[in-house]
Amino acid sequence: MQMNAKRLFNIDPWLVATHQLDKTNKRLQESLTAIGNGYMGMRGNFEEGYSGDTLLGTYLAGVWFPDKTRVGWWKNGYPDYFGKAINAPSFINLGITINGVALDLAKNKFRDFNLQLDLHQGKLTRSFVYVADDVEVAFEFERFVSNAMQQAGLIKVTAKVLKGSAALKFDAALDGNVTNEDANYDEHFWIPQHEDAVKGSIQLETKANPFDVPQFTVLLKQALKVDGATVEGMRTSEPGRLDETLSYDLAQGDDLTIEKRVIVLTSRDVEPEKQPAQAEKLMAELLPQSFDQALAAHEQVWAKRWAQSDVVIDGDAAAQQGIRFSIAQMFMTYYGEDTRLNIGPKGFTGEKYGGATYWDTEAYVVPMYLAVTPPKVTRALLQYRHDQLPGAYHNAQQQGLAGALFPMVTFNGIECHNEWEITFEELHRNSDIAFAIKQYTDYTGDESYVNGDGIDVLVGVARFWADRVHFSKRHQQYMIHGVTGPNEYENNVNNNWFTNTMAAWELQYTLERLPKADVDKVQALAVTDDEKAHWQDIVDRMYYPEDKDLGIFVQHDTFLDKDLRPASSIPADQRPLNQHWSWDKILRSPFIKQADVLQGIYFLNDRFTREQKEANFDFYEPMTVHESSLSASIHAILAAELGKEEKAVELYARTARLDLDDYNNDTEDGLHITSMSGGWLAIVQGFAGMRYTGGHLSFKPFVPKGWTHYSFKLNYRGRLIAVDVADETTLKLVSGEPIDVVINDKTVHLS
Amino acid sequence: MQMNAKRLFNIDPWLVATHQLDKTNKRLQESLTAIGNGYMGMRGNFEEGYSGDTLLGTYLAGVWFPDKTRVGWWKNGYPDYFGKAINAPSFINLGITINGVALDLAKNKFRDFNLQLDLHQGKLTRSFVYVADDVEVAFEFERFVSNAMQQAGLIKVTAKVLKGSAALKFDAALDGNVTNEDANYDEHFWIPQHEDAVKGSIQLETKANPFDVPQFTVLLKQALKVDGATVEGMRTSEPGRLDETLSYDLAQGDDLTIEKRVIVLTSRDVEPEKQPAQAEKLMAELLPQSFDQALAAHEQVWAKRWAQSDVVIDGDAAAQQGIRFSIAQMFMTYYGEDTRLNIGPKGFTGEKYGGATYWDTEAYVVPMYLAVTPPKVTRALLQYRHDQLPGAYHNAQQQGLAGALFPMVTFNGIECHNEWEITFEELHRNSDIAFAIKQYTDYTGDESYVNGDGIDVLVGVARFWADRVHFSKRHQQYMIHGVTGPNEYENNVNNNWFTNTMAAWELQYTLERLPKADVDKVQALAVTDDEKAHWQDIVDRMYYPEDKDLGIFVQHDTFLDKDLRPASSIPADQRPLNQHWSWDKILRSPFIKQADVLQGIYFLNDRFTREQKEANFDFYEPMTVHESSLSASIHAILAAELGKEEKAVELYARTARLDLDDYNNDTEDGLHITSMSGGWLAIVQGFAGMRYTGGHLSFKPFVPKGWTHYSFKLNYRGRLIAVDVADETTLKLVSGEPIDVVINDKTVHLS
Repeated sequence: MQMNAKRLFNIDPWLVATHQLDKTNKRLQESLTAIGNGYMGMRGNFEEGYSGDTLLGTYLAGVWFPDKTRVGWWKNGYPDYFGKAINAPSFINLGITINGVALDLAKNKFRDFNLQLDLHQGKLTRSFVYVADDVEVAFEFERFVSNAMQQAGLIKVTAKVLKGSAALKFDAALDGNVTNEDANYDEHFWIPQHEDAVKGSIQLETKANPFDVPQFTVLLKQALKVDGATVEGMRTSEPGRLDETLSYDLAQGDDLTIEKRVIVLTSRDVEPEKQPAQAEKLMAELLPQSFDQALAAHEQVWAKRWAQSDVVIDGDAAAQQGIRFSIAQMFMTYYGEDTRLNIGPKGFTGEKYGGATYWDTEAYVVPMYLAVTPPKVTRALLQYRHDQLPGAYHNAQQQGLAGALFPMVTFNGIECHNEWEITFEELHRNSDIAFAIKQYTDYTGDESYVNGDGIDVLVGVARFWADRVHFSKRHQQYMIHGVTGPNEYENNVNNNWFTNTMAAWELQYTLERLPKADVDKVQALAVTDDEKAHWQDIVDRMYYPEDKDLGIFVQHDTFLDKDLRPASSIPADQRPLNQHWSWDKILRSPFIKQADVLQGIYFLNDRFTREQKEANFDFYEPMTVHESSLSASIHAILAAELGKEEKAVELYARTARLDLDDYNNDTEDGLHITSMSGGWLAIVQGFAGMRYTGGHLSFKPFVPKGWTHYSFKLNYRGRLIAVDVADETTLKLVSGEPIDVVINDKTVHLS
Repeated sequence: MQMNAKRLFNIDPWLVATHQLDKTNKRLQESLTAIGNGYMGMRGNFEEGYSGDTLLGTYLAGVWFPDKTRVGWWKNGYPDYFGKAINAPSFINLGITINGVALDLAKNKFRDFNLQLDLHQGKLTRSFVYVADDVEVAFEFERFVSNAMQQAGLIKVTAKVLKGSAALKFDAALDGNVTNEDANYDEHFWIPQHEDAVKGSIQLETKANPFDVPQFTVLLKQALKVDGATVEGMRTSEPGRLDETLSYDLAQGDDLTIEKRVIVLTSRDVEPEKQPAQAEKLMAELLPQSFDQALAAHEQVWAKRWAQSDVVIDGDAAAQQGIRFSIAQMFMTYYGEDTRLNIGPKGFTGEKYGGATYWDTEAYVVPMYLAVTPPKVTRALLQYRHDQLPGAYHNAQQQGLAGALFPMVTFNGIECHNEWEITFEELHRNSDIAFAIKQYTDYTGDESYVNGDGIDVLVGVARFWADRVHFSKRHQQYMIHGVTGPNEYENNVNNNWFTNTMAAWELQYTLERLPKADVDKVQALAVTDDEKAHWQDIVDRMYYPEDKDLGIFVQHDTFLDKDLRPASSIPADQRPLNQHWSWDKILRSPFIKQADVLQGIYFLNDRFTREQKEANFDFYEPMTVHESSLSASIHAILAAELGKEEKAVELYARTARLDLDDYNNDTEDGLHITSMSGGWLAIVQGFAGMRYTGGHLSFKPFVPKGWTHYSFKLNYRGRLIAVDVADETTLKLVSGEPIDVVINDKTVHLS
């Protein structure tokens, strides 16, 4: 475990809370207090503004811009642009002055600071007492973006004068004059279209682009309440901004509650010209509700989600907080309401990775979502890929290849990242996306997707592989040259074992599923006998690098020629490598960023013997630096399976509180949303040994040292099953039909 | 040979001339009529302006800008910026109106067009008759940048009224409001500093940059003459621009000559505050000279150069023109006056490759310059690298490596390109740069460089290689992983045979030269015995991929696993590959961009048997697509050596008129200056079989089919030798001491 952990918040089962405003780690604090509702979200920025170091970030799901990155050395097949979710117009702004002094915690004196994110309901609360020579005012801010009405953001501020008298001025603003910190040339991506001071709204459009990517128009509308009654302040506007001010003189002991209600619409759902009326309508629904009523409706959604997903850990309060934080943040990012959306690696919590879709979703999130959410949530993720098949065909065509190549990074199915060694070399994602279909089908027992839209995906990917392999005359085998495996610390390698294995698996699975698929799909796809024979030939004659002496699968052709040595030989002050070593040194080193061969053993777990698993784990894990947040959980699961309980727990610890303890020293950029499944996977598939191969749910549980007991829920084939692991393992059928499950190789009947 | 050749100019032994203004190929015409004098140069743009498609380009040697290319995926060891020679303030502008109509050949009617570049003196002449309803005016433009005074540009325009009467207005301008077409965000790189209408000058500075690269300040000053007498027009200025107008009313039969003289100074040579006085001084020298006097001084320099370098080909007028065009353009780019300068791949003829220094210089230009220029010219090129050693040490350090890594692309020694697969992977350049030292030493017999500054270069490079190799325990050999060989159609390969071979050669040569080097150098370098032993161990145990069955050296570890097939199997409409195939397809294909294994056989020619040479040539050449302009010549030389005369001539033809016939369909971007040695090398080292190993000049000549005779000059160890090849080969000692040379294995005494 790395020693540079940084823990800003107190341990608590349901709260992420602190009494410290940590000005040197303000960005980190903002990341950890981000909130979202799948439709929109924002970092834990302060409503009243903050003049110190801060990363302002409000994000709207699916609203992005294709940024120009075509440079001199652009080559055929490189994507035209780099897609990024842009910082959206901000709506939390609520400037405050007290007796003419601007409230700004970077400069003012204050006491009794409290900041807390309530994980049970995704609500952010902040309070403090403003202290000046002759006046003290207690402030409390509450904020949430509603799950009951996704377009709605609600903010409540309570001010109480504790000492002296206070002339309070509030400036509730909507502000579209925002930028991205990662903009290459400090560009503004938003062009103001219209400000309506009468209606209290602003409308902006993303700037034009030369890539035929549609521009987005958003409308933000606000309304204010004071002490529960709707009021209208003095509204002024300038391009891209609306200000609405209210002033009150409060004597000692007086208090006042200001609420800001906001409706946010985007042209993804509502045409620009219809946005004003639609915002009017939604505001008319929202405004009569009290803050508590709106919050209750929002909480109800959360309560239902937690009932199906909560994990309880006794004996380790930090682990308890970690797992709930992860589940809450993941649900705040995605709960399957809109099949055009997916899960950005940083969700609504930062700019990095551009809010786009990566293979993280299928490889790491799907295995968890299958169990903690209703099947339709995972199915929405599968549908997303199906609906982007035209983009995937386009991507393959850009490379001069047949079939469908799902993008490494995308918003609309078209590749939008710009490192060739990733975009058209990290091809394994194409199989991983197909593998999620198998996981969904095997777990849920629902074959309607794989027989319907799913078969389109499988065949598209199979056609890609059949064209992308080449036949080596010398070896009389099929090879896949020029790829990047999951270990992104090597690029452009030949015959990455994982890639070759998963490509052959994908072809085989497609051949298996095709005869069972819906007739109209099969007809439309028109896979010929020659094609099928060719796919079978590839499956039969795929080349897999192996070393019989070492008893291992070889990561890629020349991996064993490297200067092999364990990660423990790296001086501590050179970790993490990606912050200390040149890319050249990293590429040539034997050190592995994340599970590569072992990812394959995890995916196709029942194909390998225990000896094979052990030999490969013992060979690769010591060279693995786990510098991807996606790495530790997979290793923890395999370690647990191999009885290496201590190792499993050590690896689990790296993933369970990755952000809360800032292990990778980069959470200030945003949370690692798609890695947050790691803790859950390590507990459920690792410690509890949950598997579902062959339609049977099975477990081989153990309790990590120090824990007394842990329990989790599984949504499984129409049932909700509560699993409780202590010295004994108890399963309870919360709802649904009776079922047989296997615990430590013994069948147990649940009813 | 490719069939898309485009020949715009007539065949002529000393002229590049045409009577056609080719508006659809205007850019190509501009490239082919570029002129320069080593200090500055410009494309064949029209003085009076041209409203049609055109690429405006004026370039000042060594004046560049570090452009920002740091994008989201920047990694440690990537360069911070992309260096580019920026389009310099233009000084050729001489706008003309005739009876109020702007002269603009894109729009006007005209006849008797003639455009010609005189290769003997690097002078551009253009004439035509402007035709309007009631007036006809004959114009002639002459232009050259002086070799007698490098800061001086001279333009002469003669106007003669053939019909009607003409009110002529001339606007001689200096214009700093120029941009680069390859600018990412249409930035202006020049910031106007000062315009002096009284003195007729403008001064500009390159914009600031965050990379500590010095800004450049330039001053341009003009003066006018009319019919031989100095005149001053009406001067006006605006930021970055000066206009000076003159008006004349001419009757039928009248004529008028306007001359524009320009002095261009840069802060590379003259501090900004001293530029006005220095420009004044140079103008005072220049202005009294008549155009013919100034031209005569300029021509004198050219005459001397041609006397030492001219090549005569009888029987092939196109080849004759090609070789002279190449020599003239190379000399216009570089003649060794300034050791801070080098030879950009496009010289002063375009933006592409950013005017920076590449390994092209050492690998392709040095072998020719050694023979066609005095030794100090080549030595200046070697000195350039020595003086940039601090940058080379910096580059290695950026990769976490010891020693000196010469840059792939540079202005100041620091790497300024931004493709990782090139910058820190195409490492062979480091040996190629060292190899130029050996070539210089072997050819000239002058050991003072290698024993002096040269040993610094050799040891710096040796220390780099000693750290960059790794020891493969499995093979018990040293390997070099993660490189790009000369074949840039593969990236990030392991154990590129050429790279490994040249690295070991470099270590060995350094070990050989070190004991002979200057004592103070040796002491300062302080190479330890351990270091030397380690270098020797690497030389002894370097791994070289070979295939004994095929009898070939293998390009890199897994090359033979590819789907090997000849380039002739590529459909004609898919050539050149880099314009038709995705980069993915190119990387995985067996097709070779330029000599790779064969480059090593060319360099270390005397190490290999004829059988080895033949086996490798026969294996690799058929897979080579020669899509680098540097490729054909090396193959032509080897083909000639192997007695494949027809092949040698075919390959020669691809390089001899590469630009004049626009074989690669990209000369519109600029000329391939550093490849222009290809024709000369193919003739001298190929057809004439010139070698100089072991201090003996030797020849194995043949006359290509269709040629009756060819002759060339060699500057060799203080002598000028004229070589004449026909049925018999005749050598003549033009100047210098007697010497023995070997012709077809027979020694001949020259006196």
